Amino acid sequence: MLGKQSLQFVNKPYLISSGSIVGSKEAEGPLGQLFDKVCYGDKFGADTWEEAESSMQKEALEIALKKGGLQKQDMQLVFAGDLLGQSIASSFGLAGYHLPHIGIYGACSTCGLMLAMGSMAITGAFAERVACVTSSHFASAEKEFRFPLSYGNQRPKSATWTVTGSGAFILSAQPGKQVRALISGATIGKIVDYGIKDSMNMGACMAPAAADTIKQHLEDFGRAPREYDKIITGDLGTVGQKLLFNLLSESQIDITKQHMDCGIEVYDGEKQDTNAGGSGCGCSAVVLSAYILKKIEEGIWKRVLFVPTGALLSKTSFNEGQTIPGIAHAVVLEHYHHYEK
Amino acid sequence: MLGKQSLQFVNKPYLISSGSIVGSKEAEGPLGQLFDKVCYGDKFGADTWEEAESSMQKEALEIALKKGGLQKQDMQLVFAGDLLGQSIASSFGLAGYHLPHIGIYGACSTCGLMLAMGSMAITGAFAERVACVTSSHFASAEKEFRFPLSYGNQRPKSATWTVTGSGAFILSAQPGKQVRALISGATIGKIVDYGIKDSMNMGACMAPAAADTIKQHLEDFGRAPREYDKIITGDLGTVGQKLLFNLLSESQIDITKQHMDCGIEVYDGEKQDTNAGGSGCGCSAVVLSAYILKKIEEGIWKRVLFVPTGALLSKTSFNEGQTIPGIAHAVVLEHYHHYEK
Repeated sequence: MLGKQSLQFVNKPYLISSGSIVGSKEAEGPLGQLFDKVCYGDKFGADTWEEAESSMQKEALEIALKKGGLQKQDMQLVFAGDLLGQSIASSFGLAGYHLPHIGIYGACSTCGLMLAMGSMAITGAFAERVACVTSSHFASAEKEFRFPLSYGNQRPKSATWTVTGSGAFILSAQPGKQVRALISGATIGKIVDYGIKDSMNMGACMAPAAADTIKQHLEDFGRAPREYDKIITGDLGTVGQKLLFNLLSESQIDITKQHMDCGIEVYDGEKQDTNAGGSGCGCSAVVLSAYILKKIEEGIWKRVLFVPTGALLSKTSFNEGQTIPGIAHAVVLEHYHHYEK
Repeated sequence: MLGKQSLQFVNKPYLISSGSIVGSKEAEGPLGQLFDKVCYGDKFGADTWEEAESSMQKEALEIALKKGGLQKQDMQLVFAGDLLGQSIASSFGLAGYHLPHIGIYGACSTCGLMLAMGSMAITGAFAERVACVTSSHFASAEKEFRFPLSYGNQRPKSATWTVTGSGAFILSAQPGKQVRALISGATIGKIVDYGIKDSMNMGACMAPAAADTIKQHLEDFGRAPREYDKIITGDLGTVGQKLLFNLLSESQIDITKQHMDCGIEVYDGEKQDTNAGGSGCGCSAVVLSAYILKKIEEGIWKRVLFVPTGALLSKTSFNEGQTIPGIAHAVVLEHYHHYEK
């Protein structure tokens, strides 16, 4: 443990490959050209939204393996999770790989948690290679958390749009045929509850957790924001971003120059009617795979703090009048200079 | 990685304390006298079943800390999960501890998965001390997966009764004021799907996964069943136990002498009308804390293979006609000879 909540990896895991798959709305967004695969039907040939989400996970991992020149039997562990009750997108999506399966749950912060846990497995010499997979789907998430799509409820300006997409990542103790990034550390988030109860304003629910994790991360590693080329949150959106800046400024921390939010990047909010931005486990995962890792691999960004953010609600807790606590897990991604193309 | 799916811990984590809390039905069962705390109202002073389950997690960890002479700030990480959608029993139950929180999901195998992950964190030198907490509640589980209690549906003989209970465990890199057991290894389970669709026969859904994990464990460690004093599954119940024996006999493995199932032990099936036995994340957790660890601590059992079993369904997947795949995660618990009372 470094400081209060952080892990520093002496043997840095190599992030050697990744895959992304998205739906039609994401393909029409500003990053549309960068994703590995687009499925325009949004049902991915399945009968239900849940099966569609499972298919995405299956395909994202297939893509990551293929791009890395790897077979499924090269993986020793899979870390996976999603937003659906009992993580069914992951269990049905990945069962066919017949790999030791570690289910994790961090709501939309899952991408950060799975990379932290996967790194722990690699750097602790428990495994040579692990796969990390997560996803979300607009339609399955609306069904799980809010209203039936056919009800056509109005969405306030603070609402986010759940990304239909899945990202898969391969971590390895050794460099592969390429290295997309190194993972040099992680900060495990605490559950932070500011008492907010509005499930149409997830940015506000999660911003306090993001602020808490970023602040603790900088303290644990003894770093200033300027030591990062980018500090990238998962899905705070425009409303959450403002709150994050305000909360951090109370501690005299200014990340306005470095900050980027995957939810803000993934859609063109004005043209695509996505209100405050994108959200979901898939949001940070597909932006990481397609965009952030590209910048790191090319050396344009040397060191990035990647902080996916999650809101720990269920429809049951929401309907019972509970608050919506947040959590954010951070990983440090670094450029690897000397890799073989 | 040892063999295909196993981890052998060179620096064995010490399981230094644990706590169990149960409801009234469990208190009336054969192990009733052994649990740390009983709440006869089953609502634990809360307004809803979900809050009641959260209260149990909070209290179970409190008990484990107290028995170990520890404070919450002595914990560096918490690994936690439960059966409810989006693991709300854990997030609302443990938020008040303000500890770095790692959410995991393995359905009723969660107790095995959290001990394996916690051990990884300790033996990999990522943390000095971690807490692992899980729970289930009869009423919240019926609501989550089956029918409203007031509907009063009939239960077939193969049905199990979800245990109302929570178990918390403290793992440490150093012995504490006592050592309840050492954790010397783990086997991470694969998702195993025999195509069974009957949510009133969870034993049958999970037995193939238990057989798979036990078989692989013995192969990975090069051990015979007789090298264990007990091989203990989580919640197969009487129906699942028979299937487990049959499946293992196909591979010429006989564990009939060593086998015990927490679900069979926790209730008196005939008197308590619990049909095939107990189930839920809480089932294996409270039996481990109150009964199994007692036997290991006293040296009556020197080496135990603890194999909680989970069924990876949700009400959505069930209602959409999906199968119910199973998973089982195993940990090896060993007697520690020389501890300070």
